[in-house]
Amino acid sequence: MPATQPATDHVRIVEVAPRDGLQNEKTLLPTATKIELIERLADTGLKAIEATSFVSPKWVPQMADAAEVYAGIRKVPGVSYPVLVPNLTGYERARSVGVTEIAVFTAASEAFSRKNINASIDESIERFEPVIERARVDGVKVRGYVSTVLGCPYQGEVPVADVVRVAARLHALGCYEVSLGDTIGVGTPAKARAMLRAVAKEVPMSALAVHFHDTYGQALANILACLEEGVRTVDSAVSGTGGCPYAQGASGNVATEDVVYMLHGMGLHTGVDLDRLVAVGAWLAARLGRETASRVTRARTAA
Amino acid sequence: MPATQPATDHVRIVEVAPRDGLQNEKTLLPTATKIELIERLADTGLKAIEATSFVSPKWVPQMADAAEVYAGIRKVPGVSYPVLVPNLTGYERARSVGVTEIAVFTAASEAFSRKNINASIDESIERFEPVIERARVDGVKVRGYVSTVLGCPYQGEVPVADVVRVAARLHALGCYEVSLGDTIGVGTPAKARAMLRAVAKEVPMSALAVHFHDTYGQALANILACLEEGVRTVDSAVSGTGGCPYAQGASGNVATEDVVYMLHGMGLHTGVDLDRLVAVGAWLAARLGRETASRVTRARTAA
Repeated sequence: MPATQPATDHVRIVEVAPRDGLQNEKTLLPTATKIELIERLADTGLKAIEATSFVSPKWVPQMADAAEVYAGIRKVPGVSYPVLVPNLTGYERARSVGVTEIAVFTAASEAFSRKNINASIDESIERFEPVIERARVDGVKVRGYVSTVLGCPYQGEVPVADVVRVAARLHALGCYEVSLGDTIGVGTPAKARAMLRAVAKEVPMSALAVHFHDTYGQALANILACLEEGVRTVDSAVSGTGGCPYAQGASGNVATEDVVYMLHGMGLHTGVDLDRLVAVGAWLAARLGRETASRVTRARTAA
Repeated sequence: MPATQPATDHVRIVEVAPRDGLQNEKTLLPTATKIELIERLADTGLKAIEATSFVSPKWVPQMADAAEVYAGIRKVPGVSYPVLVPNLTGYERARSVGVTEIAVFTAASEAFSRKNINASIDESIERFEPVIERARVDGVKVRGYVSTVLGCPYQGEVPVADVVRVAARLHALGCYEVSLGDTIGVGTPAKARAMLRAVAKEVPMSALAVHFHDTYGQALANILACLEEGVRTVDSAVSGTGGCPYAQGASGNVATEDVVYMLHGMGLHTGVDLDRLVAVGAWLAARLGRETASRVTRARTAA
């Protein structure tokens, strides 16, 4: 385990509950509740909130009201509201309601890409290349996701070289940031660190984010290892919502409350008001009719 | 954050579910179930299993059958079965059934000590000094616990100097190992690291263990930070049993399954068979009538 790089003491949180969280929750929320969620999240001080996904409603019923949700948000100046876009059709739907930042999605695992989006990795990139090109012309920012960076439910191990190749390609295509996702939550700190270090040789650390699911309870430890490597952008979802339908015993994204608690305890800054965030997490869990997966929210809201 | 010390790749797990776990569970288990738990834990390859506590049954009803439990265990050669002993009466009860390793208990927080055991820290140490002396004469090994090392429900912050002083005193009195406990689970990695580093200036790292509760979800991240500092003994409880009745929203010890998963993923060795451990964790959760707190066990036993 290495000495660490000097890095800023500010960590940017990309809140993904309204998209990555909700799309994997069974309880369908009313459009108004989704809008309220996003607005309440912005009130906590979060500056990046992934708002929705313009995928086909056939695939993800929870995201059928993407246009209504996005249009309905009272936008706070200084807060970005990226949306997931799978193709040009989705891009046009997103643009029609004024979207100014999008996210595109592929995998480091060939097997996962084929099963998940019915395309090879290269095909998936070819599919969103015109989207990125249009976004460039339109002045729309593009974030890239690489999933299954630490393991795949179909092929098992995912070579680090494959993660590096895909991440570097997304960056070269024009993604201002590439989020490295342990989609099935199987990674452990030394592997997370080694993966991040390898990618950071090809893509600047300042253009990388980490995205952990807590299926095996490893998410915070993995984030710690990646912070030590110098990463300063972390994806998380309030209340630990979501999960991956492809992962055995799927559990959700790492809970933003628990990440913020750790970061603040380490003297790092996020700009997020933890008390407000806990209130949002408890409120969202009630709307979803489930116990929160955030340990901090459980501890803070216990009688 | 620092460069790390070279250290062995073997991590010793001290399994505390039968004592620290069960004593804070509401469901009283039959004596035979406790014995079965300990025997099944030994079958996983664990080499140190805290078996029970010879406290007054008035205080801890779950431990009323301490003598029967200890006497009933089929002892595996090479496995140690320490028991908690609060005073000479407890020591004599323990010795009458053949105990060969004990643990004594105090706090780094004066306020916690007074509320929890109705004695100042110094008084608590005076209380078990004759126990340690008798143990020395009898050739009984003594382990020491220091609780509230990263925070106290009554006094809040606990100065690191107080942790160092108490840990050094226990070591000087003859404890072969001092376990540093974040009893209420409020610590974060940088604080855990700084605390451990300070203690390690007075007590050899090889005589230190870390003991985290997962109340705020920080336990694995804290363990990672402490491993990076060089600690190689970790307390944990299968299924994440237990909790602290004094902590708001009390959650239990860090789950042994999740610790072992992380350690093995990092190339560290424990001698523990994770599959067997998961089976024990699922079995124990069923006996307690609760969902397991281990994410690994949840993931591995999901349909």
